[in-house]
Amino acid sequence: MSNISGDHCPLAHDGQDVVKMAHGGGGRAMAQLLDSLFRPAFDNPWLERQHDGAVLDMPGSIAFTTDSYVVRPLFFPGSDIGAMAVHGTVNDIAMCGAEPQYLSAGFILEEGLPLATLRQVVESMATAARATGVRIVTGDLKVVERGKADGLYINTAGVGRVVAAHPIEPGQVQAGDRLLLSGDIGRHGIAVMAAREKLDLESAIESDCASIAAPVLALLNEGISVRCFRDLTRGGLASGVVEVAETAGLAAEVREADIPVREDVSAVCELLGLDPLHVANEGRFIAVVAPEDVDRAIAILRRHGVSEAAVEIGQFIEGSAGRVTAQSLIGGSRIVDRLSGEQLPRIC
Amino acid sequence: MSNISGDHCPLAHDGQDVVKMAHGGGGRAMAQLLDSLFRPAFDNPWLERQHDGAVLDMPGSIAFTTDSYVVRPLFFPGSDIGAMAVHGTVNDIAMCGAEPQYLSAGFILEEGLPLATLRQVVESMATAARATGVRIVTGDLKVVERGKADGLYINTAGVGRVVAAHPIEPGQVQAGDRLLLSGDIGRHGIAVMAAREKLDLESAIESDCASIAAPVLALLNEGISVRCFRDLTRGGLASGVVEVAETAGLAAEVREADIPVREDVSAVCELLGLDPLHVANEGRFIAVVAPEDVDRAIAILRRHGVSEAAVEIGQFIEGSAGRVTAQSLIGGSRIVDRLSGEQLPRIC
Repeated sequence: MSNISGDHCPLAHDGQDVVKMAHGGGGRAMAQLLDSLFRPAFDNPWLERQHDGAVLDMPGSIAFTTDSYVVRPLFFPGSDIGAMAVHGTVNDIAMCGAEPQYLSAGFILEEGLPLATLRQVVESMATAARATGVRIVTGDLKVVERGKADGLYINTAGVGRVVAAHPIEPGQVQAGDRLLLSGDIGRHGIAVMAAREKLDLESAIESDCASIAAPVLALLNEGISVRCFRDLTRGGLASGVVEVAETAGLAAEVREADIPVREDVSAVCELLGLDPLHVANEGRFIAVVAPEDVDRAIAILRRHGVSEAAVEIGQFIEGSAGRVTAQSLIGGSRIVDRLSGEQLPRIC
Repeated sequence: MSNISGDHCPLAHDGQDVVKMAHGGGGRAMAQLLDSLFRPAFDNPWLERQHDGAVLDMPGSIAFTTDSYVVRPLFFPGSDIGAMAVHGTVNDIAMCGAEPQYLSAGFILEEGLPLATLRQVVESMATAARATGVRIVTGDLKVVERGKADGLYINTAGVGRVVAAHPIEPGQVQAGDRLLLSGDIGRHGIAVMAAREKLDLESAIESDCASIAAPVLALLNEGISVRCFRDLTRGGLASGVVEVAETAGLAAEVREADIPVREDVSAVCELLGLDPLHVANEGRFIAVVAPEDVDRAIAILRRHGVSEAAVEIGQFIEGSAGRVTAQSLIGGSRIVDRLSGEQLPRIC
């Protein structure tokens, strides 16, 4: 409650380089943290203006989306919360048929978080943003007391210019449309779970966390009639397909034999009693396209590293809204439902 | 870790109406919470589409901003975290010289939060959004374990159409420009502090939390040459003026006698050793205008309830960047600095 003033600087001088409540107070300590850490990392003219928001020149239609990131642990094989906070929101913009351009970043920091950890996360965000060609143009910082967060939480929101000539959304899906999957599933969920539970896996399973904007924009720019995209995060492929089918008022069928799952991922899933169709991903998506576009769409996807293993896995059909059936490897079929409860909390 | 399926619904059937980890799992429990609570409250065509983001038709330049809200307690005299999450972000958009239009909402919920509390917050957001004319068009929901949050945290990001004909930002401020204040200061900070510490105040001090978009847009639409706006949240009036002066490379002087502070607020500040210039507000802003525009700007501001007590309080002058002096009530002068540490944690 005291109103500290003068030259005391909690960040630079007291030898304990951790987040303090003062860093969230709106005063000098916060200003110094922004100047020394965030603005240099996210370096761009909008942040330099130090205003309450960013003014962006964006003629036409824009896509607007948000996600909060609470993944635990903060760092895991193949990625970390910072890279996820960029790629996850970039991917949601791309799923709207738009080119990701600008992000906001809101940080909720727990008192006592080592500043070195914060720096590592912020630099990972900056690296991911540069690699994806997006700018982090506005942000916010809050600090809560010890025990009122878990290290740090990040929210990013994003905007991007719509490039699709027609709406890209579940409501556009028609019976007969085909379901393309951009690659193997389940790696992100298993990587996070293994890191959290300290599972001793024979092979290193790394998260698939990555931007999927490039192949998405390539499909649109090369004239593929994409009805809908959906990235396969919480709830996995199963929830993604069920949700699209429900909103579209259609049923769907998928062929399990055609869904790529790495052998090591499949082995861990079997061991833990998990269905790979429910395991979260961070760099995988489905694209729903007209039947005549399938071959060309697959060829375009395979030109991009992040979707080089793209395959057709099924189709939408007339039927009860949201009913998804999987033809199993051995010939039978089963109903695929969205995840009912939680499989792995705080996966993203 | 188990993969629950079937008809068990954590929201409807088990008699304990609290947030559970399953509500954040991306599966059926989450879908049901979204359908039963969030979509009806924020009712609009973008959310109905159930896509990863919202596509918005916004020709021209847009303002883009974000804030996370971690205020404690969640409810306090005059406002609550939900109304703040709308008004705070709406106000930041307005500060960019833009008309607030669309918000995103990201919720981080603590396991065990009563659903009745969540509903009250969401309904307060919906009411504030309707009153302000903005739509909550995209969102996200995460659940963290007990003890890993404090009830709930909300992030909102917002976009709006820029209406100002020229840039509205600290860099536009010139020596000789006048400093207008939209009303009395300190009520939000004192209201939250009194609620948190259960202070037994003689009079009820209510937060000033409100949208300031209407008077801001009126100034712009009626041709006032506004150089910069700044809303006076964390760090209060002092930090706002110092920050603008620093970025503008100017000094500033304010007249304390002209700064409205309610008598009861002033008395609490004196009792607690607080400087009202450092106390947070949620419905107050400064507008920096050319000297010839002062009278007309004040008249416009006074037409709106939220700024009916607007006054001129000082000016920007040549001098050392960020040096702000206050002429005190008794004639002397003092240096006004931004808050160094924290005055009251989690005020917004």
